[in-house]
Amino acid sequence: MVTRHVLDVISHRRTEMIDITAAIQELLRNSAFRNGLCVVYCPHTTAAVTIQEHADPDVAHDLLLWLNQTVPQHLPGYRHGEGNSDAHIKSALVGPSVTVLVQEGKLLLGTWQGIFFCEFDGPRRRQIWVQLLGQPDQP
Amino acid sequence: MVTRHVLDVISHRRTEMIDITAAIQELLRNSAFRNGLCVVYCPHTTAAVTIQEHADPDVAHDLLLWLNQTVPQHLPGYRHGEGNSDAHIKSALVGPSVTVLVQEGKLLLGTWQGIFFCEFDGPRRRQIWVQLLGQPDQP
Amino acid sequence: MVTRHVLDVISHRRTEMIDITAAIQELLRNSAFRNGLCVVYCPHTTAAVTIQEHADPDVAHDLLLWLNQTVPQHLPGYRHGEGNSDAHIKSALVGPSVTVLVQEGKLLLGTWQGIFFCEFDGPRRRQIWVQLLGQPDQP
Repeated sequence: MVTRHVLDVISHRRTEMIDITAAIQELLRNSAFRNGLCVVYCPHTTAAVTIQEHADPDVAHDLLLWLNQTVPQHLPGYRHGEGNSDAHIKSALVGPSVTVLVQEGKLLLGTWQGIFFCEFDGPRRRQIWVQLLGQPDQP
Repeated sequence: MVTRHVLDVISHRRTEMIDITAAIQELLRNSAFRNGLCVVYCPHTTAAVTIQEHADPDVAHDLLLWLNQTVPQHLPGYRHGEGNSDAHIKSALVGPSVTVLVQEGKLLLGTWQGIFFCEFDGPRRRQIWVQLLGQPDQP
Repeated sequence: MVTRHVLDVISHRRTEMIDITAAIQELLRNSAFRNGLCVVYCPHTTAAVTIQEHADPDVAHDLLLWLNQTVPQHLPGYRHGEGNSDAHIKSALVGPSVTVLVQEGKLLLGTWQGIFFCEFDGPRRRQIWVQLLGQPDQP
C-alpha cells in the first residue's frame, strides 16, 4: 500500500524551525494506514526536514544559532547569485527527508522527538510531501 | 511484510561511536526477512545513527574530533538549559536514521561500511529501533 | 515488489558533485516500477548522496567550497593514516543515502531538485546502489 499526501507550511522568518508533528499525525489519522514507513520529504532546496526535541523550543533556537554562525550568508568565493548559498548548504547538512516508523496508525517517535520543517530562506509558502508505505489496514 | 525490533545500546563516554553492524545482522538472521529495506532509527535527540568506515577505528575518532571542535558544548547565545545543546546539534547534523538495503537476509553494505550508533551526551542506556519492510520469505 | 540496480559513476576531481538524476530516471523508465520509494544508496565511506538544486551549478560549487573550508583535510589530532579523514567527515555530514518518492514511474522531485553523487576523495570509479520498493505495475 502506497499513498501520498501534501502538507502546506508557511514560514515567517528567514530561518525558522516549524513543528509539523501534529499535522503529520493528523494526516495519518485520516488515512487507513496502520503499519510501515512514513517518509516526510521536503521538495525545496533551501529548506529541510529533521527530527529533534520539541519539548523545549530553546533546542531549535540553539540549532539555528549554530547553523547561522557556522554557515555564513556571505562568504568570499560563493558564486550563486541569489544570496542564499547558506540556505542551500544548511539544507544539505540537515537533509531533505526523514523516515519515521508507523505502528497501529501512530508515528513511533522517541519521548522528546518531534518532526520539524526547517526554513532557511523564508518567509515563504512551502510544501511537505508525505508518503506512507507498508501494510494495508487489516479488516 | 513489516516487523519492528529493539536493540539496547550502552554508551560509556560523553561522545562515542558504537559499531552496531553485527547486532543488526544478527537480528536479521533471527527474522524471516529476506529482501527489502532495513531502517535503523534512533529515538533520542542527543544521539544519532550513521554509516561509516569500521575497518579503522581512527575514522570514528576523527569524526568525533571534528564534531567536538566544530560544535562547542558552550556557545554564547545558547538558551537550552541542560548544557547539551551541542549534542542536539550534532544529532541533527549526523541524522536520526539510516536506510540499508537487505538482500537474501543480509545487510547490503559497502566493503568498508559499518552502522554506528553515535552517542553525543553519554554515558547512557539507549535504544535503537529497527524496522524491516519488504517482501516476505518465499517458501 | 523489491528490485535493486547498480549505477556506475566516475569522478574526475578530489571533491565533486555529479548530477545523477537523469541516470536514475532512466533506470526507472527501464523497470516495471510505478509507485513507491526509490532509495539511492552510496556504498562508499568517502562519498555521499544528496538532493540539491541542479538548475544553477554554482549551488554545488558553493556547497563544496563551504565543506572544503569547514572540514580541513589536515587537522592536528586526526589519527586516520590515509590523509582523507575530511572525506569521511564530509560523507557523514551529507549522508549515505536519499529516499525519493516515485509516482507513475517518475521520480517526484521539487522544481529545482536534482540527485547528486558527492565525491570527497576522488578521482575514482564509484558505484551507486538503487533500490525500488513499492507496488508492482498494475496490468
